[in-house]
Amino acid sequence: MQCLVLGAAAGGGFPQWNCGCPNCARARAGDPAARPRTQASVAVSADGARWLIVGASPDLRQQILANPELAPPPGTRLSPIGAVVLVSADVDGIAGLLVLREQHRFRLLAPANILRVLAGHGVFAILDQTLVDGVEITPDAPIETGLDLTLTLLAMPGRVPLYQEAARDAAQAAAAPTYAASLEGGGKLCVVAPGCADLTDAVLAQLAPADVLFFDGTLFRDDEMITAGLGWKTGKRMGHVSVSGPDGALARLGALKARKIFFHINNSNPMLLDDAPERRAVEAAGFEVSYDGMKVAM
Amino acid sequence: MQCLVLGAAAGGGFPQWNCGCPNCARARAGDPAARPRTQASVAVSADGARWLIVGASPDLRQQILANPELAPPPGTRLSPIGAVVLVSADVDGIAGLLVLREQHRFRLLAPANILRVLAGHGVFAILDQTLVDGVEITPDAPIETGLDLTLTLLAMPGRVPLYQEAARDAAQAAAAPTYAASLEGGGKLCVVAPGCADLTDAVLAQLAPADVLFFDGTLFRDDEMITAGLGWKTGKRMGHVSVSGPDGALARLGALKARKIFFHINNSNPMLLDDAPERRAVEAAGFEVSYDGMKVAM
Repeated sequence: MQCLVLGAAAGGGFPQWNCGCPNCARARAGDPAARPRTQASVAVSADGARWLIVGASPDLRQQILANPELAPPPGTRLSPIGAVVLVSADVDGIAGLLVLREQHRFRLLAPANILRVLAGHGVFAILDQTLVDGVEITPDAPIETGLDLTLTLLAMPGRVPLYQEAARDAAQAAAAPTYAASLEGGGKLCVVAPGCADLTDAVLAQLAPADVLFFDGTLFRDDEMITAGLGWKTGKRMGHVSVSGPDGALARLGALKARKIFFHINNSNPMLLDDAPERRAVEAAGFEVSYDGMKVAM
Repeated sequence: MQCLVLGAAAGGGFPQWNCGCPNCARARAGDPAARPRTQASVAVSADGARWLIVGASPDLRQQILANPELAPPPGTRLSPIGAVVLVSADVDGIAGLLVLREQHRFRLLAPANILRVLAGHGVFAILDQTLVDGVEITPDAPIETGLDLTLTLLAMPGRVPLYQEAARDAAQAAAAPTYAASLEGGGKLCVVAPGCADLTDAVLAQLAPADVLFFDGTLFRDDEMITAGLGWKTGKRMGHVSVSGPDGALARLGALKARKIFFHINNSNPMLLDDAPERRAVEAAGFEVSYDGMKVAM
């Protein structure tokens, strides 16, 4: 099994289009220690030929073009992309589906509440339903993807998407807000978890068997957007556990056997910078910070 | 007045994510005569400091980052983007709005039928309505944009968006399907027309006063997607007049006084290639083929 990080940043990307914070200014200026990153998505393959994509990032067109593994062979329209798994109904988890129009056959694997969001948005009818095979996935029930990868969706503590916060559809808002994708192939297990609001003991038990874990690295400190003057929300308010702190990812995930890799990293997070003390702290704790184009084999 | 081509390609871009046709294969291989292009959008400014964007392309995040004119000054969240004009409800004309979340104040200028499409898609609620000022524009009625540019929407012959072809909302489908944006500033007039299905005498009269015209260059030949084996639709079926042919853009627009620039160019169109005979024919007729980053001053 191999993984390819298509995008390592959280919603908005790095730099964020309208942000001139010190991190974003360095990225925009081409500082090699502040590498730009697109919005979160990971591609997984059992054979290197057929790929499954976790998360349909708004940057998906740019991401596909940046990775030759995902190009159709010359003279064909045979994309190697065989399936897309949706784990969040946030804009940064679904907008990339609009890229995948153009008469390509693939499987769209998602839980019922995310499929309902798509059905409620006429614009997604751009995906030809005679070609795109939408499959409703029940959390905790493994399914064969047809790509020699077994998928299990894991419900994660989180929040409803921002655009649904005022939604009248209470039933929709009450569904599990976000998921992780667990993918098993060739005896190895990879878990992709871009959003997790609370590392409960139950969540730790779900993540324990993973050989590779891509985990929510949105904020380093719960209040970093507030102290940087970039917003009024804490990480918890946005549905993300922080990297640091007594309940944070470093403290709670440290004992897992997996290779632990942060992705879905917000532009405010200092660990994005190669020369930041926070990056050194993360690496000293045995974690990695991902970047676009990172390859992970297992 | 100055214009900046953010994206010169039609929906899908060049190369298209799943296409291995000769044009796309050359672009993907880095051939300098087959320059990649993102999906159609043009930025216009009266003063070089505040910009209005025509068309919210799915590639808008990538396009903003590629053009320093659109970056916020370091230390601020003051994007120079003051307004967005929507001229089509197609995916490639609206999806970029999802990029413009993140608490930025701007004016969203669109006709009633496109505003209705947005209101019917909950995901666009991601744009904070206390910050994003949606303004309904009546075709043929000039309005001041607040950016020293006067906007007039011109209704164009066209087709409803693909995802609406099976729509039950007949009233929506019956509205004018697509528009051009006419922008006047400092005594100069620029018209941006990414989609036009028929160059009628009435359309020619609307375009006649332009000093600069960005015009629909989707297909070179009406049947080129069919002959290339890329699809079953003619240009007319997709709502686009062709570049060549007796009713095509070269024949019908040749006498206009404007500087005439093709954009919204499909990946199948041979004039994308710097070394194609079709490119030479276009240039010999006094037209230009645009590219991402092209600057036009007037």
